[in-house]
Amino acid sequence: MSSESDSDLIFKALAHRRRREILDLLKEAPRTTGMLCETFPDMDRCTVMLHLKVLEEAGLVIAQKEGRERWNHLNSLPIKQIHDRWISAYAGHALSILDRLRSDLEG
Amino acid sequence: MSSESDSDLIFKALAHRRRREILDLLKEAPRTTGMLCETFPDMDRCTVMLHLKVLEEAGLVIAQKEGRERWNHLNSLPIKQIHDRWISAYAGHALSILDRLRSDLEG
Repeated sequence: MSSESDSDLIFKALAHRRRREILDLLKEAPRTTGMLCETFPDMDRCTVMLHLKVLEEAGLVIAQKEGRERWNHLNSLPIKQIHDRWISAYAGHALSILDRLRSDLEG
Repeated sequence: MSSESDSDLIFKALAHRRRREILDLLKEAPRTTGMLCETFPDMDRCTVMLHLKVLEEAGLVIAQKEGRERWNHLNSLPIKQIHDRWISAYAGHALSILDRLRSDLEG
């Protein structure tokens, strides 16, 4: 992560569950702003655009204009950098095993 | 991640740079609350304890009492779950290559 100010933007962006839901959708596939508005009929277009702006400023969404449409793509590099900041390569492997154990026990 | 309320706690905890600094230290090794207070002489003991409480409620720190001391351990499982939510196994590999390329270009 390049600086703590970047981290502030990233965690502020992730702190809102609506923005996390938008990222969940973009993980599946890029979507236009119009498509996102249709998925969240309880939010008006301005609110969706504001959420996208916060995500874009944090570098979590990259927007690409195609004619009159704006395609929003998930950029997961900042998420990887959160992971790498607190999880070493070795610990990552041990955690995968623990996490699988936990879900086996819960399921 | 078990629920969006858990995620709210986790991102709220990570949103403060002092708490991220505490996690950076705990990544190296577990530390007592007293040790953390010594590392951050500009914060009083109450402030350090409040930050630890927020981290503990988010499941990012696990505390263990030993006599009169409280040892604080990093629990990186929630960090791994953030990663897994938005990065698939395949994308993780591609991102590692991209991230290495980016740091090579910057360095």
